[in-house]
Amino acid sequence: MRLSRFHLHTTKETPADAELVSHKLMLRSGMVRKLASGLYGWSPLGLRVLRKVEAIVREEMNRAGAVELQLPTIQPKELWEESGRWTKFGDQLLKIRDRKDQEYCYSPTAEEAITDFARQELSSYKQLPVNFYQIQTKFRDEIRPRFGVMRSREFLMKDAYSFHLNDADLVREYENMKVAYSRIFTRLGLDFRMVQADSGAIGGDASQEFHVIADSGEDALVFSTGSDYAANMEAAVAADPGARPAPAEALRKVDTPVQKTCEDVAALLGISLQRTVKSVALMSEDGFVLALVRGDHEVNEIKLAKVPGLAGFRMAGEAEIVDHLGSEPGFLGPVQPRKGIRVVADRDVAAMADFVVGANEKGVHLAGVNWGRDLEEPEVADIRNVRAGDRARDGGELKIARGIEVGHVFQLGRTYSAALKATVLDENGKAAVMAMGCYGIGVSRIVAAAIEQNHDDAGILWPVAMAPWQAVVCVINPKRDAAVSDAADALLAEFQAAGIDAALDDRGLRPGAMFADMELIGIPHRIVVSERGLAAGTFEYRSRTAAESENLDRAAVLRRIVG
Amino acid sequence: MRLSRFHLHTTKETPADAELVSHKLMLRSGMVRKLASGLYGWSPLGLRVLRKVEAIVREEMNRAGAVELQLPTIQPKELWEESGRWTKFGDQLLKIRDRKDQEYCYSPTAEEAITDFARQELSSYKQLPVNFYQIQTKFRDEIRPRFGVMRSREFLMKDAYSFHLNDADLVREYENMKVAYSRIFTRLGLDFRMVQADSGAIGGDASQEFHVIADSGEDALVFSTGSDYAANMEAAVAADPGARPAPAEALRKVDTPVQKTCEDVAALLGISLQRTVKSVALMSEDGFVLALVRGDHEVNEIKLAKVPGLAGFRMAGEAEIVDHLGSEPGFLGPVQPRKGIRVVADRDVAAMADFVVGANEKGVHLAGVNWGRDLEEPEVADIRNVRAGDRARDGGELKIARGIEVGHVFQLGRTYSAALKATVLDENGKAAVMAMGCYGIGVSRIVAAAIEQNHDDAGILWPVAMAPWQAVVCVINPKRDAAVSDAADALLAEFQAAGIDAALDDRGLRPGAMFADMELIGIPHRIVVSERGLAAGTFEYRSRTAAESENLDRAAVLRRIVG
Repeated sequence: MRLSRFHLHTTKETPADAELVSHKLMLRSGMVRKLASGLYGWSPLGLRVLRKVEAIVREEMNRAGAVELQLPTIQPKELWEESGRWTKFGDQLLKIRDRKDQEYCYSPTAEEAITDFARQELSSYKQLPVNFYQIQTKFRDEIRPRFGVMRSREFLMKDAYSFHLNDADLVREYENMKVAYSRIFTRLGLDFRMVQADSGAIGGDASQEFHVIADSGEDALVFSTGSDYAANMEAAVAADPGARPAPAEALRKVDTPVQKTCEDVAALLGISLQRTVKSVALMSEDGFVLALVRGDHEVNEIKLAKVPGLAGFRMAGEAEIVDHLGSEPGFLGPVQPRKGIRVVADRDVAAMADFVVGANEKGVHLAGVNWGRDLEEPEVADIRNVRAGDRARDGGELKIARGIEVGHVFQLGRTYSAALKATVLDENGKAAVMAMGCYGIGVSRIVAAAIEQNHDDAGILWPVAMAPWQAVVCVINPKRDAAVSDAADALLAEFQAAGIDAALDDRGLRPGAMFADMELIGIPHRIVVSERGLAAGTFEYRSRTAAESENLDRAAVLRRIVG
Repeated sequence: MRLSRFHLHTTKETPADAELVSHKLMLRSGMVRKLASGLYGWSPLGLRVLRKVEAIVREEMNRAGAVELQLPTIQPKELWEESGRWTKFGDQLLKIRDRKDQEYCYSPTAEEAITDFARQELSSYKQLPVNFYQIQTKFRDEIRPRFGVMRSREFLMKDAYSFHLNDADLVREYENMKVAYSRIFTRLGLDFRMVQADSGAIGGDASQEFHVIADSGEDALVFSTGSDYAANMEAAVAADPGARPAPAEALRKVDTPVQKTCEDVAALLGISLQRTVKSVALMSEDGFVLALVRGDHEVNEIKLAKVPGLAGFRMAGEAEIVDHLGSEPGFLGPVQPRKGIRVVADRDVAAMADFVVGANEKGVHLAGVNWGRDLEEPEVADIRNVRAGDRARDGGELKIARGIEVGHVFQLGRTYSAALKATVLDENGKAAVMAMGCYGIGVSRIVAAAIEQNHDDAGILWPVAMAPWQAVVCVINPKRDAAVSDAADALLAEFQAAGIDAALDDRGLRPGAMFADMELIGIPHRIVVSERGLAAGTFEYRSRTAAESENLDRAAVLRRIVG
């Protein structure tokens, strides 16, 4: 590839609306161009990177025994009504009417379409197990598209769906996919972690996420020093608290005239924040609920929604709070003015004695509160976010890092296959609803995530497997000196013969501008061919991560690249 | 590839709603599955073929110097309004509203999006010429989707767009693309023809189409025996007619009480149909127009619309006809009852003498009509379809064949670049609107077109380059005899080492069912490994196009496949 014939168009300007470094660098390097909100075109440079990711994903999916197919991007409403997701998916589902006023959506994921395919194609257990995948454009109508291709509306996703006669086969394929995903992210050269996850809107029984570790990541990931335990914050669990101490204090009212937060109350009383309890008022389908977490903890809404009866909860409004507790927010608590209000306490709260809560009376809190004495024993659940430093179940300490979700594997079970009646005949000739797994990778998001993880002030630091080219041969004054130009051509040919994906920068730019471009677009290996170098029989080699260039002969350059 | 692990699912049933043989065979072989009207999923088998076509298209586009990128499928209304096509494109444009009530369309073609990309990326003549292409899903909301993927709504298209400082460069790239297209269709192994075309809704100055020759083709293609002249019926031109003979008859009325068609009038009068003239009444933007073609000819509406003032013509209604000519249809003619009606005569009509036309009077025609004597000399244009047997301009004879359009190249000129103000600075620092070419290939349609051209009663006859596998090794009783199974594995490995894309049919089917599958899905080379063959040191080889199998040794089999 000669860059004089390749459309490379970098810019020094940092786009005003780009917040993330990956978004800035993708625009500056010209990898993507915005067409409209959340809609990006991939330039020739960007597409080279995207295709390298796609190729590795495809190779490893094939190696793992999955079979590629392709489903339409536009899918009929009727199919999405069979699963109930036509309405349940919400506004992210881009709905479309055709010229005949029939309704469709742009596929944001393809459980329905693949299950429809499977119920037509699969009729016998002998055809199972099978894992179908596609690498196909998806669309999610994000309310606030941002961060470039990190959270665009149109994006490229690898989605795989496996079908099984029984759960044991599903678990086996789920494990197989986890291995394949680890191979994929390892080959891509990324620092990643697999973590336990909540299965969210897709539904199902078990799920794990793959994250690229990056400080700018939207997700908090929790690790233990005591084992390989790792989980998304949504799903992370700390160790059980110790036994509850015996009561030592009497129940008493304390005046807290303007102290509405646990922090303020603790400061006023001169006690640790850990002795206070935060009361969060909710409305569930069965009515008003008070959820309690320790003053220094945060409610985890995903966990809360898993408490029986709280699936569709929302925060209570002020009028509802006054109506049920007779007090304005800021002074709420579980020592109730009237009976019949459901109280759900976090495990840590249930293990407290002599704690402080609101008195359901303006300007007043209660101190020395004790379960079983001052109020009934509560319903107990894990409803808080873990924190760095918490004790892990394995005895280690929990640490928190930031990650960007790039993959997700689910044991779907029979949610979709039951809804769409996707059955096969089993060994006894009886119809059996198939068990399903699903396995997604955000192909276009990986490109942005890799940049978040790998960049410096000069630009991108591509892992070799994702780089647009592994190596670029830069020619100084290609038109002035035929010997230099010929030597560069020969070197390029030699690289290609050695299986190195290399390009020749024959654009005739000044060295400074040329080198700045190569650093910006993140080329791992730069080799300069110049008159002076040729006279000395050397090339100027520089690794993208090295501070200095080195003058090396041809063989040494090759060794540096092949490694 | 082992077919036991590949999802192959053929069926003997011929789908009721499939008319074309390609549609039937793609469904029977399981290559595609219908999701909804005009929406097809590609099964693993179908996708293998689609990807082979895609790969050849990509290789040849790259070889020709074009650069791949990818534009979003969803594009904003504002951009399509800049070109005027938001309304002009018509109902085939699938329009979409997002959650914020912004309007978009699903790209049916990408002139607007690429011109927007170009005006952002290209600023200097030094960046030209450049040819960008993508292989991307498109959507056209066909009013009557049919013939499977031949005319589906969602389809895969390769679309390329070139940008130039001047017309000479555009013409050069246009010729370059024609060469690339010929290479593509040649490599695909298809019988194809390049023909002159009308440039249609895309607009522009010159265009040619590439057709796969097939009896079922929707398009009539015209060839000359005298040269390599070839054109779509829309654009095909016959030789100029000879000089007009001198008048020999007097003008006279003839009674034609119920004879409304030229055929009936000619039969009544006992004259050749070629001496009659058909009068077609039109409404143009400037009013009523009478178009004349010879009784044995058909009007070509594309050509007619190119006559000055007739761009938006429609057929006149009966009331309009009576109003302007004072007669009901069936007896119309250019010998006018009143002045001021525009008459456009086909070249062949203008060369006639002593002809027969309607008298604009019920039950009456005029015979012995002559130009310049009985009526004014007409406005002359080529407004008819050519017919097989017509003399060509090159002196040869015109022949007609049927074709399926799979490619189209256009010299767009400055239609889009002027509308979107896509300029670069030229050598003198002046802003110049770029000249554009565009070049499309219907990637998914090629798959269906190839089947239309290459099939027999047993199924598909793939050209080798498009076959899902070049060769399949069929194992008889793989589980009964380990030696047979091992020999098949060894043969597969040998094929793969020789660069042959081969699969192993280890599904354990009966030979008859296995062979029927291989014939249906069109595998070019079938090799059977059996106990009996192994004992004799031979394999049973059969070419898909051969009537008989042959027993050959390993080396001979390889020679047959590699050719």
